[in-house]
Amino acid sequence: MVANVPLDAADAEACGLTRVPVDLGARSYEIVIGRGALAEAGARIAEVLPGSRAAIVTDETVAGLHLEALRASLDAAEVGHEVITIPAGEASKCFSMFQTVCERVLDAKLERGDAVIALGGGVVGDLAGFVAASVRRGMPFVQLPTSLLAQVDSSVGGKTGINVRHGKNLIGAFHQPSLVIADTAVLDTLSPREFRAGYAEVAKYGLLGDAGFFSWLEANHAAVFAGGPEREEAVAASCWAKAAVVADDEREAGRRALLNLGHTFGHAMEAVVAYDGARLVHGEGVAIGMRMAFDFSVELGLCSPEDGARVETHLTAVGLPTTLADIPGQMPPAETFLDIMAQDKKVSRGALTFVLVRGIGEAFVERGVDPARVREFLARELERESAAR
Amino acid sequence: MVANVPLDAADAEACGLTRVPVDLGARSYEIVIGRGALAEAGARIAEVLPGSRAAIVTDETVAGLHLEALRASLDAAEVGHEVITIPAGEASKCFSMFQTVCERVLDAKLERGDAVIALGGGVVGDLAGFVAASVRRGMPFVQLPTSLLAQVDSSVGGKTGINVRHGKNLIGAFHQPSLVIADTAVLDTLSPREFRAGYAEVAKYGLLGDAGFFSWLEANHAAVFAGGPEREEAVAASCWAKAAVVADDEREAGRRALLNLGHTFGHAMEAVVAYDGARLVHGEGVAIGMRMAFDFSVELGLCSPEDGARVETHLTAVGLPTTLADIPGQMPPAETFLDIMAQDKKVSRGALTFVLVRGIGEAFVERGVDPARVREFLARELERESAAR
Repeated sequence: MVANVPLDAADAEACGLTRVPVDLGARSYEIVIGRGALAEAGARIAEVLPGSRAAIVTDETVAGLHLEALRASLDAAEVGHEVITIPAGEASKCFSMFQTVCERVLDAKLERGDAVIALGGGVVGDLAGFVAASVRRGMPFVQLPTSLLAQVDSSVGGKTGINVRHGKNLIGAFHQPSLVIADTAVLDTLSPREFRAGYAEVAKYGLLGDAGFFSWLEANHAAVFAGGPEREEAVAASCWAKAAVVADDEREAGRRALLNLGHTFGHAMEAVVAYDGARLVHGEGVAIGMRMAFDFSVELGLCSPEDGARVETHLTAVGLPTTLADIPGQMPPAETFLDIMAQDKKVSRGALTFVLVRGIGEAFVERGVDPARVREFLARELERESAAR
Repeated sequence: MVANVPLDAADAEACGLTRVPVDLGARSYEIVIGRGALAEAGARIAEVLPGSRAAIVTDETVAGLHLEALRASLDAAEVGHEVITIPAGEASKCFSMFQTVCERVLDAKLERGDAVIALGGGVVGDLAGFVAASVRRGMPFVQLPTSLLAQVDSSVGGKTGINVRHGKNLIGAFHQPSLVIADTAVLDTLSPREFRAGYAEVAKYGLLGDAGFFSWLEANHAAVFAGGPEREEAVAASCWAKAAVVADDEREAGRRALLNLGHTFGHAMEAVVAYDGARLVHGEGVAIGMRMAFDFSVELGLCSPEDGARVETHLTAVGLPTTLADIPGQMPPAETFLDIMAQDKKVSRGALTFVLVRGIGEAFVERGVDPARVREFLARELERESAAR
């Protein structure tokens, strides 16, 4: 992990930020992307939510790296604020932390027009967003995502929530932010493993609907990892892709489900390891899940084996896991995976819903997947896993 | 409390139900009102949410009276269902019960298109509605209100929530039901005190915007209490009034705040007695609060003393409390009330918002009420209270 990158307003002005609009009628908002964007947060929040006070929700790790820069920016814009720090890690996405943060926001005497600001990765954003959706039945919400995963995925689109023993994100709300600021310089502070995990979601946008972007990633992934202008380009392209899908289908009645490519398998793996980030983080589950979604599609005769192989090759090239054998520890039988998938939010009338593919860039939602076919596929994946250990 | 009224489909067909539409675009729904409506619940749910299973959330008291009738109606319509019973009383509107009911809905393996049905009064409706809003980020919700208060107020309009130590309903969601069924026969099972408390909200619709309805209530309140056709008329008139306001301003950006006539004072009184229903129930707080809102408006020179007196006379005539002295136990100083009101959801930029009146049927929202004027008024109310004891 490198040291905190110093940011100031002059940097931000100098560097030309990218703005991606999310078109949702009265709830439209902007994603501001670029190196140094965090230094502008105060001014932009004051512009979008004039006169508001704010509660910053962050975690202990992120607070040590970026909180001071954010507070300075809010002070400069005269945005009064309180800080609520939660423990880092997926375990904070739980009922008791939800209650604690709600109560802390009320302790701070924030009013209905004041803002909840999430400064952190997906955990902070999902939890703080559900708090913002629920306190006083909805307060304005600002996302300052500090992980690649949060910048390209979880901070955009309004999905918020917490985990329960039945599965991930099963309790929550759709609550759109008023503003998202993605400072790509803060990604310099991520561990390589965390950056890679976020990259799985970047690759996803290519795999689900943009073969050209996937080819571009095959050629430019090293520069995206190294932090050149290609990184901004990849983040912006991902946000454009997500914004288009969300604008089209805010509450996931149809097309938005495409964004779950790799997620039905991925969520099940996360549940299997009990959300133990030491064994598997979300983006890694998505990477393995996407490779499985391609291979399952190949097996169903929907997709060419060549496209399946290209996916596995690229994910491996950037260092992402692609098989169950890449997850440390014992795997349960196929039935356990199926039981977990049956609790997925995407289940409808007992039939499993999967995002399948006809090739790279050609994902589609299949609502009537036969659980027996999934069981067979999983059994073969598990055999492959045993053989590899 | 009288015995459970037998209900069957033949009764329902015979009695001609009233339907009140709530016009909210894609989220529009109907309120079905009349004696015997509960017997039709299964058929109507199957019509509005075809193919859905359901979780019935109810409390121990209501379950003993009406659960069997509802289950028979759901069975007849082949709507599979589970029952989740919570303890009766305001204390159930808390974080831990919210968590418990969410988990029970997930235990029942309900899917995103399945329904949460609230069978009960305001507590059950508010809690179950917040659960329906949050599980899988939103499931269809059906309200079967069994108290007068719930039938004319809390079941319509989509406000859901739980209480925290900072105040009532401070955590929740706007989540519109898909259907509301108000069976006025079930009101025969209410205690007189509970019926009266609900009647305060009925009177509110006259006081805030319909002087003619208030005059009608002055003439017909005995028949409304006795359970004649005037009762259906009063419930339907109240639902029409609420539906019009909600359709106009779903998320309380403006006109909907009129529905809070009497509620800023009322909520503060409820907080003062720590939501102890033995001392004060919601509708009683609203009755006292409405009388105070009229007298405060008289004191501010906005309303004639004659209208103020008419309000006090009518509320007293039906047996509702109208002064702080009517609340058993000690009252705190005015400052405590002000502190509580400063935490109200309706506070904006430090100024207190009150619903004031220019006369009966002429309420308006005043956003810049000087706390000093409120303090003086409360001090006089408290003097009157001490003198009366």
